[in-house]
Order: sequence, then structure tokens, then C-alpha cells
Amino acid sequence: MADKQDEKKVTPRSQDFAAWYNDIILRAELADYSPVRGCIVFRPDGFAVWENLRDELDRRIKKTGARNAYFPLFIPQSFLQKEAQHVEGFAPEVAVVTHGGGKELEEPLIVRPTSETIINYMFAQWIHSHRDLPMMVNQWCNVVRWEMRTRIFLRTLEFLWQEGHTAHATREEAERETLTILEVYRAFCEDFLAIPLITGRKSAAERFPGAEETYTVEALMGDGRALQCGTSHFLGQNFAKAFEIRFLDEQNQMQHPHQTSWGVSTRLLGALVMVHGDDQGLRLPPAVASTQVVVVPIWRKAEEGERVLAAARGVVESLESAGLRTHLDEREGVTPGFKFNDWEMRGVPLRIEIGPRDVASGEAVLARRDMTGPPAKSKAPLGDITTRAKALLAEIQKSLYQQAKAAAEANTHRFDDYAKFRAQMEGEGGGGFADIYWCGRAECETKLREETRATCRAIPLEQHHPPGLCLVCGEPAAERAYFAKAY
Amino acid sequence: MADKQDEKKVTPRSQDFAAWYNDIILRAELADYSPVRGCIVFRPDGFAVWENLRDELDRRIKKTGARNAYFPLFIPQSFLQKEAQHVEGFAPEVAVVTHGGGKELEEPLIVRPTSETIINYMFAQWIHSHRDLPMMVNQWCNVVRWEMRTRIFLRTLEFLWQEGHTAHATREEAERETLTILEVYRAFCEDFLAIPLITGRKSAAERFPGAEETYTVEALMGDGRALQCGTSHFLGQNFAKAFEIRFLDEQNQMQHPHQTSWGVSTRLLGALVMVHGDDQGLRLPPAVASTQVVVVPIWRKAEEGERVLAAARGVVESLESAGLRTHLDEREGVTPGFKFNDWEMRGVPLRIEIGPRDVASGEAVLARRDMTGPPAKSKAPLGDITTRAKALLAEIQKSLYQQAKAAAEANTHRFDDYAKFRAQMEGEGGGGFADIYWCGRAECETKLREETRATCRAIPLEQHHPPGLCLVCGEPAAERAYFAKAY
Repeated sequence: MADKQDEKKVTPRSQDFAAWYNDIILRAELADYSPVRGCIVFRPDGFAVWENLRDELDRRIKKTGARNAYFPLFIPQSFLQKEAQHVEGFAPEVAVVTHGGGKELEEPLIVRPTSETIINYMFAQWIHSHRDLPMMVNQWCNVVRWEMRTRIFLRTLEFLWQEGHTAHATREEAERETLTILEVYRAFCEDFLAIPLITGRKSAAERFPGAEETYTVEALMGDGRALQCGTSHFLGQNFAKAFEIRFLDEQNQMQHPHQTSWGVSTRLLGALVMVHGDDQGLRLPPAVASTQVVVVPIWRKAEEGERVLAAARGVVESLESAGLRTHLDEREGVTPGFKFNDWEMRGVPLRIEIGPRDVASGEAVLARRDMTGPPAKSKAPLGDITTRAKALLAEIQKSLYQQAKAAAEANTHRFDDYAKFRAQMEGEGGGGFADIYWCGRAECETKLREETRATCRAIPLEQHHPPGLCLVCGEPAAERAYFAKAY
Repeated sequence: MADKQDEKKVTPRSQDFAAWYNDIILRAELADYSPVRGCIVFRPDGFAVWENLRDELDRRIKKTGARNAYFPLFIPQSFLQKEAQHVEGFAPEVAVVTHGGGKELEEPLIVRPTSETIINYMFAQWIHSHRDLPMMVNQWCNVVRWEMRTRIFLRTLEFLWQEGHTAHATREEAERETLTILEVYRAFCEDFLAIPLITGRKSAAERFPGAEETYTVEALMGDGRALQCGTSHFLGQNFAKAFEIRFLDEQNQMQHPHQTSWGVSTRLLGALVMVHGDDQGLRLPPAVASTQVVVVPIWRKAEEGERVLAAARGVVESLESAGLRTHLDEREGVTPGFKFNDWEMRGVPLRIEIGPRDVASGEAVLARRDMTGPPAKSKAPLGDITTRAKALLAEIQKSLYQQAKAAAEANTHRFDDYAKFRAQMEGEGGGGFADIYWCGRAECETKLREETRATCRAIPLEQHHPPGLCLVCGEPAAERAYFAKAY
């Protein structure tokens, strides 16, 4: 077992980021390839992280007033066509069910790529009066998009997500809801996943098909490429009109409601790997880690083993009763070194080592996963272990955020000169975030994309600078925007 | 609003059980029909019940050592064909994806009707040594079976469920796992859902396609028909051989593991309606109810309203801080009577009414949903409301179980005479459970089914009676079995 692990070294992150990313995911047993092209298997260690993430975000979403529901997986093909931009955006990438129960279907069914159409069909049945508003539902489900190039977690044919859908009496209320959720996503990613973000609105070219405005939270990965972590769409009345959703307002006038939709997906698991991981493996923020503390007893002779195991079990009991998710590694036949490497690979934030000498001196060693070398280790009396572990976990949560924040800031650059911008995007290191003046015209955006593969990631909602000149065309530009090469 | 509800009376249960069932589900807003044939929408009030049910069962399943994972929705068509009985059972009812991304697929994909095939394909990648066993995974997901006749919750094209899949080194361990889960299901249904059950093994004809033995928990619905609430299958080595899962045992011999699979689905929501509901609507056991207590303030004059609302809010706060899921019904423009009916329809176990006189006397009225008429109501001092509510909820949980148990026992009959059995099955009242001697031969089972539509629901694992004579053929029969007409 120990030998097997030694054989397959993880590709160093600096050498080949993509290979490193896959190595980590497979070796930490987060996920595996499946026999279906572009579909993955979420293994128990990966799914446990998803469950923690989902449960916490679910609580935060419910606090805003949305309630969970579940709508059909299948959507009549004709539904997709009701909103012009929506069909253009999604029709090319749908999976189509043509046969059921051994017979060809009269109308093919598509497997949902997103559920605006079928949910709004139902909203039309349920919404009649202003008293039925706001209507706010959220759904955790699987969706399918027929991607050609796939990558674990980041782009797969099938993925898991939550999609919220709301309808409101006024435009203002719907716009407010869009931003409320954007803030839920921002706080969740930064506080719970320790992933620093930039937020803003999307350019017209990057908008959700059918939305009037798309807001986004974007993070910078370890290779300098951006990842869209969540989006919140203001749909205006586009779907309400397409699906004939109407309500009688307080003045007894028939109105179409104003709507939003918003979602995050299992690609957040990819973000966790790419933001926090290192050459030793995964580094999970304590808040989302399925195991927060692993206790490794160390001994050679049988008589030592008994005392060490007894002490280790006492520590585990104390940690668990304090609500810490703890695992005792009692495996025999593998060395402590193997165990250390194994848990580092799996990203457990804190490791506690207890050997015969520690038992004798009434102490244990605590090793932080967010640091390397001697500073990562400290000793504590056995009686203080739980207090110390809690404090360290809180520190690790902060420190992982700060490390990621520092890395993102170091890789965010302001450019006034197109040539320098282009050199940065074409150089090693992925390019990072470029903070530039942009006139807002599609031509300049297209030129940037075609020449550097950088796209507009977000236009910050608050602009703290005077108007300037567009980096591309030199014409006046009212706003700065973040551009980057993105996943 | 009040008028609208009065217009549409619920069909009395005794008059037309099927119509009553649909009326309750639609009026309590548990679910709705969708535009896709045979697929339903789980509305927030129904989904909240599913969430409570799922979270509690998930905790119980995890306690047995299984961990959650997620496998692809799509399965290569060829996988289904690897186990002979499995393909025979499922091939006729699958949905088939033939096109993706605008192109015809080389091999069609089926939408999972159950995941034995794809999970066992992955098990073959992961299982190599006895140290990898037992492998125990569980998955909460949607599955699709192309049913021709559908009914909300009970039989739909798409439904939600959990499916557990395990692999063990020995036959004995796998058999034990099958029964461990059967007991998890029994305790969960009886204690949490207040649904009394019979348990046992299935006849060969009723077995899961590909299983060596299927165990079941079965409940009797209010109309005297049986509903299969959960099944646990001992798969032997059938799938292990079909998917070439092998491990090196402790003696260094290659072996196939022994396996199980087991599941319960959203049809349990249908069971809750059909076991507990009455002509006033749903009656939810407190453990699973999304709202356990509703507080209805009652007043006419504005100055009364303030005092009443203040008292009601105090009660809600006290209930919530005691961990009770509580709702304050502050709606204006509808009468207290309308509110009472509305919450009875939605099945909230306990209602607290507070009017101006109650506030003056420092009391409130508590109304239990599990009883009708004057005995359902009692008064309690405002200071004691929370203690009283907790005690009443515990009583309601028990009383709903006892009422269901008494109804099931009253509709369970022993027969020694085939003519009487047949008359019972053909009479009004659905037939109930028939407890009969059966020789175990398929001919007798087929004759029973063809002549009375009753099928073998369960053969109890413990048989507390001497051998007898088969009800059908009169030949010696070692065992008694429960037969019933079933959903």
C-alpha cells in the first residue's frame, strides 16, 4: 500500500497545473472518471465536501425566504423555443430523449440544461394575484449540457447545482433580489470556502441567455485563470411574457411579474482544489472539510500501543464532543509517514500526532495543513487539545483565505497599455486578473478575446475612479472591468 | 380566497379514495401535475416533508457505515444487458437518449432506472483487496421508469429515491447487511413516519430483477390496499460476476464479493397521505411535519389585535426556542375559520388559537389534528404552552401510529377458505392484508393473482405456527404469507 503510493508521485503544480489538478482529485478520491463520456463519479470523500457546502448554502438561501421544490428532469422540446435568446444559448448543447418504454415519443424531451422554462410554465399556473408574490423557489438537482471538452468538476456533461427562480411584483424588488443572492454567494464563498472573489455584472456577451443583466462572483485559480463561481440573473419580464405569467396587481391591473434566477454548481469543488491545493495535495478549509481533525497514534511495541491508543481515543472523544468532525486513524501495516502523507493529500486541516513520549509527557503534536515545515507544528498538553484545536481551525480558515487573497492580489494587474496587457496574457502564469478601462463596446471585447483569449469576467458595481480611456480603442471609457482567461 | 376554497370541496375518502387522495395532494399543495406526462412537481410544502424524511433516513443510513456518493444519470445501453434478469426487468421501461449536442450518439444512453450496473462497473475499478471491503455507498438521486399508468407519488416516470449498494467479503456479511437495512427501514417508517408495517421476504415472482432474495417493508393504506414502502435486496454474486468485481482475500485467493442493494423513494409521501389523511385533509406525524405548530391569532377590533399579536408572537418565540418548527399565521382578510380549515388541510399536527379573551385570562387553546370534535381541544396557561405543546406533539406522534395500527389490524384477516378469501378481495374496502398458508409454488400464486388481483406482499421471516395446508391447492404449506391487492 505504502509502496503503491510512492510509485505515483503527484505532478508538481508549477510544472503542469492541469495534470496536478487531476492527480489531486483522483488521489484524494474526490471523484473518478466514469464509463460515460464527460460524466464523473463523485466518490464519498468528494461528495461529503459537496454535502457540507450544499447544506450551508441551503441554510443561507432559505434565510432569504426561498423554499426548495423539485421540477421534472425532462422538458418538452418546444418549451426551450419560447424565449428566443434562451433557445439560441441552450439548444446546441442538449441531450434528447427520443424513446421511452420501447416506443418513439411524439415530442422529444430534452434533459434539463437549466429549468427556467418548465418552472415558469408552473409559475403561470400558480401566480394569479399580487398576494401570490413574491414566489421564490430553489431546486438542488442534476442538469445536463452536452459539452465537447470536459474537465472534472469544472465542465462535465452532467453536474449538480442549485437553481433559484423567483417572481416579483415590481422591477425594483426583482433587481434587489438578484443582488441579495449575489451577496449570499459572495459571503458564502469567502467565509465558508475561504475563496476571495471579485463581484460585478457581466458584459452583454457573457450574459445568461434570456437575462437582462447577469451578476457574477469570480475567483482566480492557482494558475492565474478565472473561474465563474456563481451567477445571479435579472430576467426582467422575458420569461414571464414567453410563458404568459400574469397577476392582478393591487390596482386590479394585469401585470407580468419581474423575475430572477441564480445558481452555483459542483464546479465549486474544482475551485476549492485550484485555489487551496498544493504539491502535497488538497487543503480544505475547516468549515467545509468532512474531516476537520485526524488523530494519528504512533507506536512500535505492543505495550506502547495500548497506552497510545487509549490517549488517542480520549482526545478523539473530547474533540467530537466539542462538535469537531474527527477521525482516528487506527490502520495497521502502514507507517506514520504514509498516514501523514495520506491525510495531507486528502486535505484534512489539522493532524494530531500522539506517540509514547507524548503520552509520557502528557502532550500531543498538532500539525496545520495550511503551513509547511517546522512552523506548522506545535505541542499542547492533552488536557488543552480541544481548545487548541478549535482555535487552530479558526486560524486555518482565516489563513487559507488570506493566502488565497494574497495570491489573487499578486496576480491582479492594472494595464494602461494594450501591448503589456497582451504580453501578460500570453506569458506564463495564466495571466491573472487584468483591471482595465473598457469602453463597453462589443468590438473591443471581441478583439481582446480573439487576440488574447481573455474575456470580460466582471464589471464592478462600484466604480471608484474617474473616467479613462479604453485599453483597446482609446476612446472614452466610463468604467473599469476585470478581464481574464477563464475556465 | 375563502370563497374559492369553499367552492371546491374535497371528495370524501369513503366515497372515492383515489379522488380524495388527489384532492388532498393538490389542495395541501404537496405536488402538482407537470406538462410532462407522468412527471410531477414537488411543491415547497411537499418537498419540505421529503427533506425532513430524507435527512432523518440519511442520518440513520450513515450510522450503519454507508457513505453518500453520486454516479452518472446516464448508463450505456450495453451495461443493462450484462445481468440477464436485470435487463429483462428494466429494459421495457427505460427512457433512451439518442442525441446529444445536435448529433446522434454512437451508443444510446439510458436514463438510470436504478444504478446497479454503473455502480458495479465502478466497484470493479475500486475493489482489489479484502482491505477495500466492505464497500458501502448510498446515493440520493432521481431515477426514471417509463410507466404507462401513473399516480402522484406512487408511480411516476421520474421519482426521487435513495439507493444503497454494498459489497462484502462473505455471503454471511452481505446477508446480514440486507437485514440491517430492512430493520433501518422498519424502525424509520414506524417511529418517524408513524406507519405500521409488516416485514418479510418476497416471493420469487416479486423479487428485484437480479436479486437472490428481496426483503420488504409493506404498509396497508386507508383503502385496504398494500404499498411496498422499501426493499432490501441480497444480490449474491450475480452483479459481481457480470461486472467482474474481484478481490484478493486474506488467503490470497481471488473471490467475487457478495452484494446488496436497497432503497426507498418519494412514494413514502403517498403512504403518509393514504395512511394518515382524513376528510379534512392531511395529518402529518410531528416528526416529519415541516410545520409542527401553527399559531393563529384571532381578533376583530384593532386595539385587540395589538395585544393578541403580541401574545401570539411571545408564544411563537418560546416554541421556536424550544426547537419546535412553528408558523405564525398573520394573514389579514381571511376568517379564523378559513385559517383553521387551511391548516387542517395542510396537516399541521398542532394549532394554537389565541383571542382577546385568552389574552385576558392568560391562556390559549390547543387543537390537536389527530382528533376531532371537543376532545381535540384543550386550554393551557400561556406560560405552560411550550411544555404542553411538546407533550402533545409526542402524544400525536404515538396516536397517529396507534390509529394506523388499529386500522391495519382491523383490515388483516386470516383465511382457511379460498371462497371467503376471494369474497374479501372482491368486496368493497380493498381487501386488506390476507394472512394465509401458501405452499410457495408459483402456480398457486399466479392463480391467486389472476382470480383476485392479490399478490404476495411478504413472507414473514419468523413463522410462529405449525405447518398447514395451502389456501389455494390444499397441499402441505410450511409457511404463512401476507397477500393483498397492492399499489
